[in-house]
Amino acid sequence: MLTQPLLYSLQVLALCTYPELLESDGFPEDAKCKARSIMKQLDNGSVGSYSVAYITQHVPQRIASFIQRRDGAIPSDPRNIIVCSGATQGILTIISLVTNTEEPLRTGIMISVPRYSVYMDAIVLSGAVPVDYPLDEENEWALNVQSMRESLYIARKHCNPKVLCVINPGNPTGQVQSRECIEEVIRLAAEEKLLIFADEVYQENIFAPGSTFHSFKKVLFEMGPQFSKKVQLVSIHSVSKGFHGECGFRAGFLEFVNIDPSVFEVLYLLKSFSVPPVPGVIALDVTIDPPQPGDTSYDTFIAEKQKALSNLGEKARLAEMLLNQVPGIQCNPIQGALHFFPRIHIPDKAVRLAKAKGQEPDVFFCHSLLEETGIILVPGSDFGQVQGTYHIRITIINPIEELENILNNIIGFYRKFVQEYS
Amino acid sequence: MLTQPLLYSLQVLALCTYPELLESDGFPEDAKCKARSIMKQLDNGSVGSYSVAYITQHVPQRIASFIQRRDGAIPSDPRNIIVCSGATQGILTIISLVTNTEEPLRTGIMISVPRYSVYMDAIVLSGAVPVDYPLDEENEWALNVQSMRESLYIARKHCNPKVLCVINPGNPTGQVQSRECIEEVIRLAAEEKLLIFADEVYQENIFAPGSTFHSFKKVLFEMGPQFSKKVQLVSIHSVSKGFHGECGFRAGFLEFVNIDPSVFEVLYLLKSFSVPPVPGVIALDVTIDPPQPGDTSYDTFIAEKQKALSNLGEKARLAEMLLNQVPGIQCNPIQGALHFFPRIHIPDKAVRLAKAKGQEPDVFFCHSLLEETGIILVPGSDFGQVQGTYHIRITIINPIEELENILNNIIGFYRKFVQEYS
Repeated sequence: MLTQPLLYSLQVLALCTYPELLESDGFPEDAKCKARSIMKQLDNGSVGSYSVAYITQHVPQRIASFIQRRDGAIPSDPRNIIVCSGATQGILTIISLVTNTEEPLRTGIMISVPRYSVYMDAIVLSGAVPVDYPLDEENEWALNVQSMRESLYIARKHCNPKVLCVINPGNPTGQVQSRECIEEVIRLAAEEKLLIFADEVYQENIFAPGSTFHSFKKVLFEMGPQFSKKVQLVSIHSVSKGFHGECGFRAGFLEFVNIDPSVFEVLYLLKSFSVPPVPGVIALDVTIDPPQPGDTSYDTFIAEKQKALSNLGEKARLAEMLLNQVPGIQCNPIQGALHFFPRIHIPDKAVRLAKAKGQEPDVFFCHSLLEETGIILVPGSDFGQVQGTYHIRITIINPIEELENILNNIIGFYRKFVQEYS
Repeated sequence: MLTQPLLYSLQVLALCTYPELLESDGFPEDAKCKARSIMKQLDNGSVGSYSVAYITQHVPQRIASFIQRRDGAIPSDPRNIIVCSGATQGILTIISLVTNTEEPLRTGIMISVPRYSVYMDAIVLSGAVPVDYPLDEENEWALNVQSMRESLYIARKHCNPKVLCVINPGNPTGQVQSRECIEEVIRLAAEEKLLIFADEVYQENIFAPGSTFHSFKKVLFEMGPQFSKKVQLVSIHSVSKGFHGECGFRAGFLEFVNIDPSVFEVLYLLKSFSVPPVPGVIALDVTIDPPQPGDTSYDTFIAEKQKALSNLGEKARLAEMLLNQVPGIQCNPIQGALHFFPRIHIPDKAVRLAKAKGQEPDVFFCHSLLEETGIILVPGSDFGQVQGTYHIRITIINPIEELENILNNIIGFYRKFVQEYS
């Protein structure tokens, strides 16, 4: 388990669910106050009602304030914010919306290699074409505009690339992109008229010392009006992916920049198939409007947050340290998010054996690991990887003792595997 | 508001959300017991976790028991049950799944006129073709197999009808179909090789004396193995649409009969874009596994249920009585669900005026009503209606005094409208 769910969040949700609890002594005053203000905005004060105004007006107003606090003085307009049923649904909706299956040249969606696997499913389901661009593994998984440009130009021969998807902090790679990288990507998008889809669901999970999250929106506006008035941007965040990791609630939001309001009409139709669940939207509401200094729950909230992030940081350092000691394994710094993607050298003999079995070599490695140790890892090929390189995806969700144990087992098995096939 | 949400349901959800409440005296023992058993099945005991086993295994087992209790001795297999994020999502998923946009002849989806409007959106979005069949308004909105057959034969000239959608109890029409009608529909589906999609989300909202809900599954199995081993059936139910009407939770389920297991693999991919929210699944769990005789909460639960249903019944009788007194308005018996669809005669002069304005006559009526009285009604044309007939959709959700007032205002306006245009 990542960490305990945030106490304040559960308290507010329990109060809204069963309002008789507002009379109980067992809840802090600020949680009661937040619950009362939410219930005033719910239809009939009930978590079981549709509550369209709460979802489409009240919560977007608070999200706009959250974004403004996050990005400094840059304005955010609630009318450009849509609450969705979690990030996956948001990704699918946007990719469906931009994909035109009736044009002679198919819609291209640029997506990193490696990437969160839902992107490929969404692209294929929508009838678009994936346009892969590699992250720069030698450079801590940085975005590399030169590679992006090369992929783009090749792709234009057979499809019409419209959208550039960027995942920051990285999934499954765990890096946090620098401000410079983001600026370059925005310049590329401006030149090449690409819509940027910024998957920023891990924006609150930054734990490496010196790493800072820069939102695409912030960088875009700091680059001045020649960019901020022109480049189309859709950014996504989710309640599933904060440091608290409440993935069962299914709520998130999209912010749109420079998108024509007429798009919202079509979006509304698509979205009508996925009305966000009210308890999830309440969890989102609490996430983007947490206790403030002076509130009863503030100290607890900050302590929980710091504990969650420092745990993640500690696990990240442990994983890097253990793996980078092993000849044949290279692990980039893990700066944020919840996963990492170390590269493993697979001996030629194992590569040949895997291919003879009709398997990818990393899949063969993961199957062998499972048979020998009982550990299930997702092979790199599920996320995409540069040809001839092999990876495994590991999460830092487990408690540290468990993670250490898992890593030691993987390392032990890897050493034996290399020996066996050398 | 339809009714108060069910106390027991909110208690269980609050307990699961904030487990410290299990120590409190403010909750009945059976709610605590149900909450404890649910929490054992949630990942980390937390409502904020994905909880795949809870959603895909534990709850389907209890749904199968619910279906068996509902249908008598007919078996239900949890492996054929999928929990979804509400009925709308379920409808879209199934219609997408059966629609093949690459066949030369487009996929046809048979759907009643009138029908819940989401069906048309789902059909158009999926790239299928709607094949309308009229309900028999002269016969209390009964399913009429003769009309279905005529629509089907005409449609086969230009598309490939694969699915027959039936909404029972009716939305927006409020009728409950007889066992005989359902049998005839099943015979038709068997002869014509159509998959039946039975929208049974209002199955628990039956309030007219003498009306009984017959599930398609039950009737199918009672017709013997020559039908029950052959006819493909997908039935949908939702936590939104019980007598408690908890539409903000977004959870429901689909039961599949005679569907090849390989379909589930594709379904799993589509479904992965719409992971059901855990709080909603808990609400569903409680709905299909309510307090039983002898449990602490049983008497309260039964009293709430009976009150909700008798309120609906009272409002239905009032609406029929008031509207059927008015020359030019005909209202069929309202037997279940939450809406009704009275027919209104619109004078020729008004029909001509509306057409000159480029409006449907019922839209013109509803606009005039809104301007004069402030009452918003959805015009019949939004749901489909037989050409030359006009309807309005009214809900029985408002409290009875409010409904009476609304109906009297509609009637007063209708009389003036008829006078003005005669």
